[in-house]
Amino acid sequence: MKPLLRDNERIDQLLSKNIQIIQSPEVFSFSLDAVLLAHFASIPKRGQIIDFCMGNGAVALFMQPRTAAKITGIELQERLADMAERSITLNTLDQQINVIQGDVKDALTFFPSDSIDFITCNPPYFKEQTNSKKNPNPHLAIARHEIHLKPDDIFITASKLLKMNGKIALVHRPDRLLDIIDSMQRYRIAPKRIQFIYPKQGKEANILLIEGIKDGKADGLRILPPLFVYDNQQNYTSEIRSLLYSD
Amino acid sequence: MKPLLRDNERIDQLLSKNIQIIQSPEVFSFSLDAVLLAHFASIPKRGQIIDFCMGNGAVALFMQPRTAAKITGIELQERLADMAERSITLNTLDQQINVIQGDVKDALTFFPSDSIDFITCNPPYFKEQTNSKKNPNPHLAIARHEIHLKPDDIFITASKLLKMNGKIALVHRPDRLLDIIDSMQRYRIAPKRIQFIYPKQGKEANILLIEGIKDGKADGLRILPPLFVYDNQQNYTSEIRSLLYSD
Repeated sequence: MKPLLRDNERIDQLLSKNIQIIQSPEVFSFSLDAVLLAHFASIPKRGQIIDFCMGNGAVALFMQPRTAAKITGIELQERLADMAERSITLNTLDQQINVIQGDVKDALTFFPSDSIDFITCNPPYFKEQTNSKKNPNPHLAIARHEIHLKPDDIFITASKLLKMNGKIALVHRPDRLLDIIDSMQRYRIAPKRIQFIYPKQGKEANILLIEGIKDGKADGLRILPPLFVYDNQQNYTSEIRSLLYSD
Repeated sequence: MKPLLRDNERIDQLLSKNIQIIQSPEVFSFSLDAVLLAHFASIPKRGQIIDFCMGNGAVALFMQPRTAAKITGIELQERLADMAERSITLNTLDQQINVIQGDVKDALTFFPSDSIDFITCNPPYFKEQTNSKKNPNPHLAIARHEIHLKPDDIFITASKLLKMNGKIALVHRPDRLLDIIDSMQRYRIAPKRIQFIYPKQGKEANILLIEGIKDGKADGLRILPPLFVYDNQQNYTSEIRSLLYSD
């Protein structure tokens, strides 16, 4: 039997979902982005969900309490896919969640076209704090930068996989809104719900959540209520505390 | 000399700007949209500004304290253009603001191409509360509905009028964001600043402010801090009070 933890790994817990997740400072750790995406996505109660760019499994694990759908994560990096698998086992969710170690762009080799109900994606993007310099750690560079997966790759693949009226929800950076909307529409995915996350009152948005529907009508876009991460005392706001600790 | 007020007209005041404005329930009255647009627009200190769909002059009058630029309003409806002219005189601003009664689509007959620094536009759009039924009053129907001016008309004209790196700021409805972004980009205007206005905390956005730059780069879109109109006691928030009463 494989040991649960490798060197330099720890188990973190998302209290609000009673989910345990294996993390390591050597590779990508889940962030607030994953928690926000798992909460934002209007996932179905049943059917088949795919989580693109699964990382260590955070989005899949955090969505799971809200659905009985099968969830398959796709993760390019062996190290992260392995961590995700062990976290799924740790939470005894192997019946519902599984992992494919591979490239999102090859997802059609694993699933028939027009067969998927919902896709989530917390893709690589340039982190603001890295100032566009790539991380010398290749695990972190792939997870953070658009080396292997660009918006067009995401939506061309999603559009083929999704059933008619299937949905995809994505977390990204607000300054990429135009690219993302353009790419969604080019691949027959109509943006329907957008939510902006602001670090605090009076600051510009720094996280974008967006959901679209395959072959949906172009009208009826909704801009959901804004969320603030910190209050003026630099504590999490009650909305964020509730997502992290008591959802 | 023309009388200042016609039948059924009154003078309202925007206290924060010490601006008086002639209004009438028979025609379009200025709304919070005009105040928000005049505040949002990053207008230049000098040069030439055009206000498309001037209405009774609210946006032009509310911008004026922030700039020494010449402001020309274009208004299709004779009745509204006449009210705007009288309000300009009432505020002794005839040297800085003037009115053209005509169609925005004909603006190139009044101004050379590539000559304008900034354009503002509070265009007709379907009011949510009318449930897409057109107002039987033709003054209100033209001011509220896209009878005479669609987003493409606005941006094709703006793109011709604006200097390189000239800007246009627009107020509209969030559910039209995709059309507006698409139309801006089709006519070489790069969206650069977006602000969403929410009726109160926890509600979806109901007003969109968007500004773009002619021949600007496609990257660097900013989502400005959100504004809430009402607090939980149904009073104006301090931000809105400041715009209305003490800017």
